[in-house]
Amino acid sequence: MEETVAHAVRETALRAKEAAKALTLAPRSVKDAALAAIAAALEANTAAVVAANQLDIAAGRDNGLTDGLIDRLTLTDARIRGIAQALRTLIALPDPVGELVRGATLPNGLKLRQVRVPMGVVGMVYEARPNVTVDAAGLALKSGNAVILRGGSAAENTNAAIVKLLRAAVAAVGLPEDCVQTIDALGRAGVTALLQARGLVDLVVPRGGAGLIQTVVAQASVPVIETGVGNCHVYVDAAADLTKALAIAVNAKTQRPSVCNAAETLLVHQEIAAEFLPAALAELHRLGVRLHLDAEALALLPGGIPAEPALADDWAREYLDLELAVGVVPSLDAAIAHIARYSTGHTEAIVTEDLAAAQQFTDQVDAAVVMVNASTRFTDGGEFGLGAELGISTQKLHARGPMGLAELTSTKWIVLGSGQVRT
Amino acid sequence: MEETVAHAVRETALRAKEAAKALTLAPRSVKDAALAAIAAALEANTAAVVAANQLDIAAGRDNGLTDGLIDRLTLTDARIRGIAQALRTLIALPDPVGELVRGATLPNGLKLRQVRVPMGVVGMVYEARPNVTVDAAGLALKSGNAVILRGGSAAENTNAAIVKLLRAAVAAVGLPEDCVQTIDALGRAGVTALLQARGLVDLVVPRGGAGLIQTVVAQASVPVIETGVGNCHVYVDAAADLTKALAIAVNAKTQRPSVCNAAETLLVHQEIAAEFLPAALAELHRLGVRLHLDAEALALLPGGIPAEPALADDWAREYLDLELAVGVVPSLDAAIAHIARYSTGHTEAIVTEDLAAAQQFTDQVDAAVVMVNASTRFTDGGEFGLGAELGISTQKLHARGPMGLAELTSTKWIVLGSGQVRT
Repeated sequence: MEETVAHAVRETALRAKEAAKALTLAPRSVKDAALAAIAAALEANTAAVVAANQLDIAAGRDNGLTDGLIDRLTLTDARIRGIAQALRTLIALPDPVGELVRGATLPNGLKLRQVRVPMGVVGMVYEARPNVTVDAAGLALKSGNAVILRGGSAAENTNAAIVKLLRAAVAAVGLPEDCVQTIDALGRAGVTALLQARGLVDLVVPRGGAGLIQTVVAQASVPVIETGVGNCHVYVDAAADLTKALAIAVNAKTQRPSVCNAAETLLVHQEIAAEFLPAALAELHRLGVRLHLDAEALALLPGGIPAEPALADDWAREYLDLELAVGVVPSLDAAIAHIARYSTGHTEAIVTEDLAAAQQFTDQVDAAVVMVNASTRFTDGGEFGLGAELGISTQKLHARGPMGLAELTSTKWIVLGSGQVRT
Repeated sequence: MEETVAHAVRETALRAKEAAKALTLAPRSVKDAALAAIAAALEANTAAVVAANQLDIAAGRDNGLTDGLIDRLTLTDARIRGIAQALRTLIALPDPVGELVRGATLPNGLKLRQVRVPMGVVGMVYEARPNVTVDAAGLALKSGNAVILRGGSAAENTNAAIVKLLRAAVAAVGLPEDCVQTIDALGRAGVTALLQARGLVDLVVPRGGAGLIQTVVAQASVPVIETGVGNCHVYVDAAADLTKALAIAVNAKTQRPSVCNAAETLLVHQEIAAEFLPAALAELHRLGVRLHLDAEALALLPGGIPAEPALADDWAREYLDLELAVGVVPSLDAAIAHIARYSTGHTEAIVTEDLAAAQQFTDQVDAAVVMVNASTRFTDGGEFGLGAELGISTQKLHARGPMGLAELTSTKWIVLGSGQVRT
C-alpha cells in the first residue's frame, strides 16, 4: 500500500514537473488570465463550493472539531468573494519571474545578471483552511510554479470542489491542468511520500499547528520552510505613550486571538507599570481576556478582577486564545533578554517614544518582524502589500516573515560573454 | 562516547551563539579590522602554518591520498599570500548587514523596511582544503556570523594551526574568540552532532565530494545548502563562432579539470559537427584529454587519435579529470533536453552568435549559472566579484550559484508605526 502511494505521489510530482516547464515560460498575461479565470469560476460556482463545504462542516461537527477550527473551515458567499478579490490583488502585482536581483559588468567584459526564476514544483501541506487552497495555487501560478496541494481530511469535499475549478480554469487559458494537483486522496502516506520526493519537489511549505509543522520538518528530505508558530510579545517601554500602548496591547491580543501574529505576552517596564497596568488589565479583562500575571503585575491588579499567577511555562505558551501572560521587567535589557529566551522568532513589538530604545530593540531582537509602535497583527502578506501569503516563515533560510511571490522564486545567474576564457 | 561528543558540540554551538550576539552588533570597522588582523597573522606566521601543513602532507602520502588531493591540501608561501590577499578583497566589499532589501510606506502610514541580518551560527563541513578554513571564517565574520569549522582529518594539523591564528586575531580586535571554533578534534561523531543541533545552528554548508555532500544532506536536521556537484555542459550551436567554441571548450575542460565548474560533456550541433569536431577532438587529445564519443562524433575522429565509445553512464559522470564525453545533437531543442536530463544544475554554456538561440538556452536551461559565449570556469565567487566564496550552491532554496556575503545573511522586517492597530 505505501509503495503504491509513494509511486502515485512520484507520478504526480513528475506531472507537476512537466507542467512547470510550460509555466516557467508562460508570460505574465497568461498567468494573470489564469488567476482571473479562477476568480470568475469561484464566483460562478459559489453555490457548489458552499454545498461541498457544508458536508465538511457537518462531518467536522460529528468529529468534534472546535469552534475555532469549524470557523476556519467554513466558506460563505462573502468569504468566497473575498478569496476571489485576493486573486485580483495578485493579478495587479508585478510578475516576480525575470525580476533583476543584481547585475554587473566584470572587468573582463562578462555581463552578469541574477534574475528571479520559478522554484519549479512546490508542495503545500495544510489543514482545515480551504482558502489556502486558492491562495497557494494563486501565488504558485503567478510565480510560475506548479503546486501539489494536501489540504487535510477535514476539508476534503471543499478542496476537491475547489481543485476541480482551479484545474479547469488553468486549462481554459491554455496552461497544463497539472499546474495544480491534489494528493488529498492519498491520505497521510501521501504526505510522507511527498516529503521524501527529493529531486522532484523543490519546496514544501507546511501551514497549520505546531504539530503539523514539526511532523513535516522531521519527515522531510525535500527543502522545507517552517511557518507560523508565534509566541509574540508586546513590550511597553518606560518612555511609551500609554494611550498607544493600551490600544496596541488590546489590538494585538484581542482583534483575532486564534492566529499566529496575535500577542501572547505583555511585558511592562517597572517605571510605568503602576500607571499603565491597572487600567490595561481592567480593559483586557472587560474584553474577555484571561490573565496570567507575575507577582509585580498581580500587585497592581484592580480589585474584583480575576487573574492567575503566571507559571513558568506560561511565558512559552502560544495560547491562540483570549489568554495573556503579563510581566513587569526592570529594564529594556531585561525585556530583550526575556524575548530572546521565549520568542519563536515571529513578531515582537515595542511601544516607546524614545528613539534609542526603539533602535536598541530593533537591532537586538531576533525575529522575522520587529515592530515599533504598531500592533503585532500587521505581520501579514496582505497588510505588507505582498498580496495573499503562503504563510509566515519563522526560519532564517530563504524566506523570513510573510511569504509572497518573491519568496516562491529562486534565482539564476545569466552570464553573457563574447568568447571569454579563464586564465 | 557519542553522548559526550553531542554534548561537546552543543556546548560549542552555545558558545558560538553567544559570540554571534556580539558579532551581530559589531560595526563594519571592527569586522574589517578582524579580517586585516587575520591576514597579517597568516603572513607573519607563514612558516609555522607551512610546517604544520608538511605534517599533513606526509601523513596524506602515507595514507595514499591522490596527487589531486595532495595538491588541494598543500599550502605554500605563495598560496598563503593569496589567501591573505583574498581577505583584503573581502575587506574592500561593503558590509552586507543592514543592507536594505525592500522598503515601502503603507497606506496606513506604517514604514516597512526589510534589511539584511546575520544568519547567526554557521557550520562548515569540508575536507582537505585548508584555504577554506580562512575563506569561510572571513566570509562568516564579515557577514556577522559565528562559524563552527570541521575541516576533516586529512588537514587537521594545518587547520589547527590556522584556527589558532584566527581566534587570536579575532580576540585582538575585541571580538569573542568563539566567533571561530573548530570541532575537528571530535571526529565524525562531531559532524553528526553538528548536523542535528537544531535550534542552535542556523545553517550548515558542506563542501567537498558528492559523498560528503550526500552524507550531510541525509543526516542533517539543521538547514543545509548543497554545493558543488557539477556535471557541466558546453553546447556548440549551429550558429557558433567556431574559434570561440574551440577556445571555450578547451578552457572549460582543461584549465583546471579537478574542479566543479570544469566541463564534463561537449555537445555539438550536427550542422557544424563535421567542420568543428575533427580539429576540436585533435586539440583536446593534444592537451591530454581522454575522449568518450558517441557514434556521430566517433565517425568524425581524425585517424591516429584514440577514443572510446561513450557509454550510457558517461553522460552522467562528473569526471573531475582530463576526460570528456562528446555528443552530436540534431538541434538546440535536443541539446536542451540532453542537459535537462543529465545536468546537476551547476553551470551550462552555449556558444552561439544567434540571439534567439542564446535567449532560448538561457530561458529554458535550469541551472545556477547559464553562460553564453563564455567558459564554464567563470562560475566562481571571486570571478563574479563576490570576494571569496563559501561554495557554489546547486539548490534553489536561499542561495543558487557562488555563495558570498549576501548568501550568509537572512533578513528582518522592521516596521515603524505611530500607534497603528489593525481593524
